Amino acid sequence: MIDAVTLLKSIHAKKPLVHHITNWVTIYDCANIVRMAGALPVMAHAKEESAEMQGISSSLVLNIGTLTPELVESMILAAKKANELKHPIILDAVGVGATKLRTDKALEIMDSVHVDIVKGNSSEIAKLAGSDVLTRGVEATEVKDDISALVKELAKKYNCTVVVTGAEDIIASSKGTGFIVKNGHRLLGEFVGTGCMAASLIGCFAAIEKDYAIASAAALSCFGIAAELASKKATKPAAFKQELFDQLHSLNSVDVNALQKIEVLE
Amino acid sequence: MIDAVTLLKSIHAKKPLVHHITNWVTIYDCANIVRMAGALPVMAHAKEESAEMQGISSSLVLNIGTLTPELVESMILAAKKANELKHPIILDAVGVGATKLRTDKALEIMDSVHVDIVKGNSSEIAKLAGSDVLTRGVEATEVKDDISALVKELAKKYNCTVVVTGAEDIIASSKGTGFIVKNGHRLLGEFVGTGCMAASLIGCFAAIEKDYAIASAAALSCFGIAAELASKKATKPAAFKQELFDQLHSLNSVDVNALQKIEVLE
Amino acid sequence: MIDAVTLLKSIHAKKPLVHHITNWVTIYDCANIVRMAGALPVMAHAKEESAEMQGISSSLVLNIGTLTPELVESMILAAKKANELKHPIILDAVGVGATKLRTDKALEIMDSVHVDIVKGNSSEIAKLAGSDVLTRGVEATEVKDDISALVKELAKKYNCTVVVTGAEDIIASSKGTGFIVKNGHRLLGEFVGTGCMAASLIGCFAAIEKDYAIASAAALSCFGIAAELASKKATKPAAFKQELFDQLHSLNSVDVNALQKIEVLE
Repeated sequence: MIDAVTLLKSIHAKKPLVHHITNWVTIYDCANIVRMAGALPVMAHAKEESAEMQGISSSLVLNIGTLTPELVESMILAAKKANELKHPIILDAVGVGATKLRTDKALEIMDSVHVDIVKGNSSEIAKLAGSDVLTRGVEATEVKDDISALVKELAKKYNCTVVVTGAEDIIASSKGTGFIVKNGHRLLGEFVGTGCMAASLIGCFAAIEKDYAIASAAALSCFGIAAELASKKATKPAAFKQELFDQLHSLNSVDVNALQKIEVLE
Repeated sequence: MIDAVTLLKSIHAKKPLVHHITNWVTIYDCANIVRMAGALPVMAHAKEESAEMQGISSSLVLNIGTLTPELVESMILAAKKANELKHPIILDAVGVGATKLRTDKALEIMDSVHVDIVKGNSSEIAKLAGSDVLTRGVEATEVKDDISALVKELAKKYNCTVVVTGAEDIIASSKGTGFIVKNGHRLLGEFVGTGCMAASLIGCFAAIEKDYAIASAAALSCFGIAAELASKKATKPAAFKQELFDQLHSLNSVDVNALQKIEVLE
Repeated sequence: MIDAVTLLKSIHAKKPLVHHITNWVTIYDCANIVRMAGALPVMAHAKEESAEMQGISSSLVLNIGTLTPELVESMILAAKKANELKHPIILDAVGVGATKLRTDKALEIMDSVHVDIVKGNSSEIAKLAGSDVLTRGVEATEVKDDISALVKELAKKYNCTVVVTGAEDIIASSKGTGFIVKNGHRLLGEFVGTGCMAASLIGCFAAIEKDYAIASAAALSCFGIAAELASKKATKPAAFKQELFDQLHSLNSVDVNALQKIEVLE
């Protein structure tokens, strides 16, 4: 069992500042989900301030959902400062495998700085691991290769934690260990933004817990539990989304450890 | 009658990828409404990838609500690829008639590529058709000229489908035929974003139905029907907006053909 | 007592166009809150049109929440036109004191044009007034100096109205007069965007009422009253946010004067 209760309470107590350079589609939801988890979001994408803002933050979430080369420049500036200060960096590899720009820039970030946690759906991660797959915009396509093997390989190659989100989330550390998170709900896949929000939540937990596989598993399990609780109150996507935020907001008073469905990755 | 039931089911079955280069105000709602209709949104505005992303998409929605010259460059790159691949292009002429930049850039797009569907409110479309009107920011002002005549003229001049949204929506094809859609609800005009969402929905239907006047009428009628259904559950704008998304999400199980209020344009 | 009832009815009657150059996180909420108050929002950040769009607007809201130097250039172009036309300018000093860029650019705007209303949280305003404080991203930190004194000093120095938002809002005019607004609710501080929305609301009232201290107090009091009413219907942040919009939408039918908690600033 991962002690997510203690981590969640710690986030509420310390209120870490989670810096984002992210996409323009879900930027509000990314900021708001951080607030719901008890942390504080900040978004500063100008290259003139991205590193300085990182200096007063505790973690960094990079999301390439609507990237430009200039935005990636800012990401690398903030990331270098994060590396220097040992702030965890989460890279959400949105759309890798859909265009050359996305694949190239994700790899450029990973080669320029040490990314602590790389997150994506199955085809995004498979592409980063070298598979010949196509991501359909920002949607996963079927991956023929063994995704667990690819994840472990990528984690080892980049000495980082790799997270694949899906019906079940797979998390692998560079040491070969990992988790499968089985919390969640079908409705999380029925509207825009839950993948981005999941990365932002990992940014909150990684600011508190230095074992990033544990931080990622705790974050995704809590997100999934909030979804399970929300699904008891709302059965359609927009009402469910509102309820999801509200469940997450009071999740620090729920015994999330008891609701956890986390297995060890074989 | 337009068989919107079949079109809606086809969108859910084929899940076309609807590429957007759009504004930063309503970008989330544009993405989410596409998801609610059963299709998949993608937003890729960097000029380095906009054409490539178009290559794996099925239609293109261009919305100039917060345009810059650079963004329009990207739009044209994606649009050229869309023309090449015969993907329908929807141009939402947001704010044309409010500033020279908006009017000039909308016309530049229409002169550089073949736009399949041009959509706007009455003063935006009147301005594109050559009338001397002022759009009040992004709000329609009274148009003294005969709007039906202007719409038909514009459709003929640019060999495209023209859509004017309002209390009643007017749709004219280049062949002189067209529709008036009378579905809808007053509350659609009481909050920000419904015009943009309507264009994104047209992008979903046009990806499936190659008669773009029919696609536009089906999209706007379905949007209006979802609004009518939502208004039975919520009477204020924010609650109504949430309900609108949820009604649209399950509209594929509603007999929308029976609720249709579409007339032939004289 | 400030006659906010009459001001609110006047906004609904005249529907002033409130031009924004704002941040990408809360841009939708800024636009929508303006709509809820009965005014019309427009967002035009391209330097090629920002001044021209100002020309057809009634007030200007500048928010540096996700600033870049280019965006500030556009802000100054719009602001010069606003000064020329005597449209009120509201500057929301988001994150001043967090990075050099934010502090420098806010001061650059205030030195380049006449800003009519400067708004921020306590540490943002203290920093503008010359205190040595750190803003934690976009969150206020404790200010050791006497905030009322700082506010009055800043108002005098820049010959403008200064607004500090917090549990109680402080408003000071350049003449040394001012207000304390005690309407509001704890839940306003539990999700992202209420600070930005407050500035946009001030933009609506300042378009109608030329005494900007009165306009600011009326706007913040109405916002607080809507929050108080919303809190009777919703107790969690996301549900509350939706209710807040809906309460504001019908606030023109509420006797807000009777619910006002505005005191004179000593």
